[in-house]
Amino acid sequence: MQASSPIEKVWPAAEIVADLKEVRSKAPLTHVLTNIVVTNWTANVLLAAGASPAMVIAEEEVSDFASIAGGVLINVGTITSFDAKAIRAAAIAAQKAGTPWVLDPVAAGALRYRTEIATDLLNYKPTVIRGNASEILALAGASGGGKGVDSTAQSSEAVEIAKELSKRTGAVIAVSGEIDYITDGKETIAVPGGHVLMTKVTGVGCSLGALIASFLAIQKNSLQAAVSASAVFGYVGAKAAQKAQGTGSFAVSFLDELSNLSV
Amino acid sequence: MQASSPIEKVWPAAEIVADLKEVRSKAPLTHVLTNIVVTNWTANVLLAAGASPAMVIAEEEVSDFASIAGGVLINVGTITSFDAKAIRAAAIAAQKAGTPWVLDPVAAGALRYRTEIATDLLNYKPTVIRGNASEILALAGASGGGKGVDSTAQSSEAVEIAKELSKRTGAVIAVSGEIDYITDGKETIAVPGGHVLMTKVTGVGCSLGALIASFLAIQKNSLQAAVSASAVFGYVGAKAAQKAQGTGSFAVSFLDELSNLSV
Amino acid sequence: MQASSPIEKVWPAAEIVADLKEVRSKAPLTHVLTNIVVTNWTANVLLAAGASPAMVIAEEEVSDFASIAGGVLINVGTITSFDAKAIRAAAIAAQKAGTPWVLDPVAAGALRYRTEIATDLLNYKPTVIRGNASEILALAGASGGGKGVDSTAQSSEAVEIAKELSKRTGAVIAVSGEIDYITDGKETIAVPGGHVLMTKVTGVGCSLGALIASFLAIQKNSLQAAVSASAVFGYVGAKAAQKAQGTGSFAVSFLDELSNLSV
Repeated sequence: MQASSPIEKVWPAAEIVADLKEVRSKAPLTHVLTNIVVTNWTANVLLAAGASPAMVIAEEEVSDFASIAGGVLINVGTITSFDAKAIRAAAIAAQKAGTPWVLDPVAAGALRYRTEIATDLLNYKPTVIRGNASEILALAGASGGGKGVDSTAQSSEAVEIAKELSKRTGAVIAVSGEIDYITDGKETIAVPGGHVLMTKVTGVGCSLGALIASFLAIQKNSLQAAVSASAVFGYVGAKAAQKAQGTGSFAVSFLDELSNLSV
Repeated sequence: MQASSPIEKVWPAAEIVADLKEVRSKAPLTHVLTNIVVTNWTANVLLAAGASPAMVIAEEEVSDFASIAGGVLINVGTITSFDAKAIRAAAIAAQKAGTPWVLDPVAAGALRYRTEIATDLLNYKPTVIRGNASEILALAGASGGGKGVDSTAQSSEAVEIAKELSKRTGAVIAVSGEIDYITDGKETIAVPGGHVLMTKVTGVGCSLGALIASFLAIQKNSLQAAVSASAVFGYVGAKAAQKAQGTGSFAVSFLDELSNLSV
Repeated sequence: MQASSPIEKVWPAAEIVADLKEVRSKAPLTHVLTNIVVTNWTANVLLAAGASPAMVIAEEEVSDFASIAGGVLINVGTITSFDAKAIRAAAIAAQKAGTPWVLDPVAAGALRYRTEIATDLLNYKPTVIRGNASEILALAGASGGGKGVDSTAQSSEAVEIAKELSKRTGAVIAVSGEIDYITDGKETIAVPGGHVLMTKVTGVGCSLGALIASFLAIQKNSLQAAVSASAVFGYVGAKAAQKAQGTGSFAVSFLDELSNLSV
């Protein structure tokens, strides 16, 4: 059976621009439970995009907040046993309240503890799962072979597995890489673009997961929401790279370009 | 009774310049217990201003450190039950040692757990309370109506409540907004300036709370200390905005301008 | 007895360039357990240098990860009782697996709790200990007199104590300051360079500790690894300072220059 090539979508396709415009106009409250490496960067990315980030992490607060937020990100990048309780509570509350949420299974496959946590979180029906190829393969039960937080597999290698994972979990799967592949099990969209510098600044992928949560707050079609956020990142990353003098100024330009993107 | 308009103070009023000069010369040790989103930014802001920040957060260490520091910031932005013990210990030690301290009740009103913690901290007599209008209203027992960490009220709406809160708690209240209002219950100072970009970079307000703690270390008049720090921020924010290409370069320029401000 | 002046080494000495080239080519997996102020910055510094950072902090994961990593950094800058268990487990695992590891005893001497923790960690044989003069003096049992996280002693004052500490612990000691002194107890190397702006951005010293861990992964001579990482920092810091407009752009330029350094 010959698989057809996925359709490509890039900025400035009309529906992508419309989604960003909606984020800018609604400033969706986005509940972010992420790793300690990227909290500041992620907040600044969401602010630059026009969303309203809130890093609420206390077990005593996450259930209430996940219920009122427009979207939730759960990223297991530096999860500890203390965080795990709050993260589980947030996932349960999001599912119960019908708040769309994104799971980012950072380094799943490379480390057993977080792989088990990420696998357990599938029970609470994430709306989107975003990861690199190794992480998606690992979460699907295939051998991912990640090296720390970096993927050792190409995103294209994970597409078929991602489709299966989508069918099994009901989540849209977003596989980040040189080309991002996003699938709901039936339809698969390819989002090219970006730049290798995006892998030389920590947290770019993690902040994409958060931005997908913001887009889910204003776009009920989860596949479209994940595609729009990814396409914005691909465009902004490529544009920022043109102005960058190195990795430090790339990060600065990324936020500048994202905040200036006209809709 | 007709309320008189508050007096305005802006950089480079002589007493504000003198205060910054004193911070530069004394490099006051500033003990910062803040949220995980803004730790790095806050440290860099204090360093740019000439203060000496130290993020000491262990329950085993905070009492000793709050006693020897020149000023303490307690910010409940991402407080957990684990942090709460250390934060309470730091407040108690600061009060006992006579170290001036600043309370930043981030998102008070929006979330019950932290509202209760922030309210309890009032027992340990903060020297200054800094927040946006929603947070100050909530801490005063009025309905704040915040949206996550963002205010839904104007700073001017909170002035009268801030005066009452000041009289009740003995703290200077600094209400941040398009215009900052700072009051000790009797006198109220307005600090205009700043730029909307200051709300598009995470942690600008949080770092102002920390800088007030640094200024309290060298200026015994708490109202003046809070006014000086706020005026420095207003000036630097406006100047940085002139050079910014977007939110990323604004943050960079903010630190540049702050570090270069001549006294 | 007349002590001879230490030999100076600076970029671009052949062995230093060769070490950086090896880091770039091997991208050594570097396990970083550091303080919450500098996690993001440290990850970006390692990425700019060409290493592969991973901040794995859960007690359930650190032993496995320290065993497979090329090098480990343990920095006690914001250590809590919760972190202490994971940090101890990581040190034990690194020693057992033969993974080289760096101890950064931030603010040792100024605070008893962390001084005891850092002293206990000496039992697990750090490969390199990096600190400012006050921290090294304190760890050696001498009176360091640090002020918060800043040194009140010159690096040159700590050289003789550092040699003794090296002989006693078996670790290479890297004393950071205006000139860095690095010793294995027998040989002592001076690394001049750098710029005072490196003390005005938080985490520069902390990230040097992490970079030494990356260099240890590819250079078995621990003295040489610490010298190479320090010399890279000295060169990059001085070059970045030429382009900086203040502390904000200095940090950006530091990452740019580090990422662009040709080997």
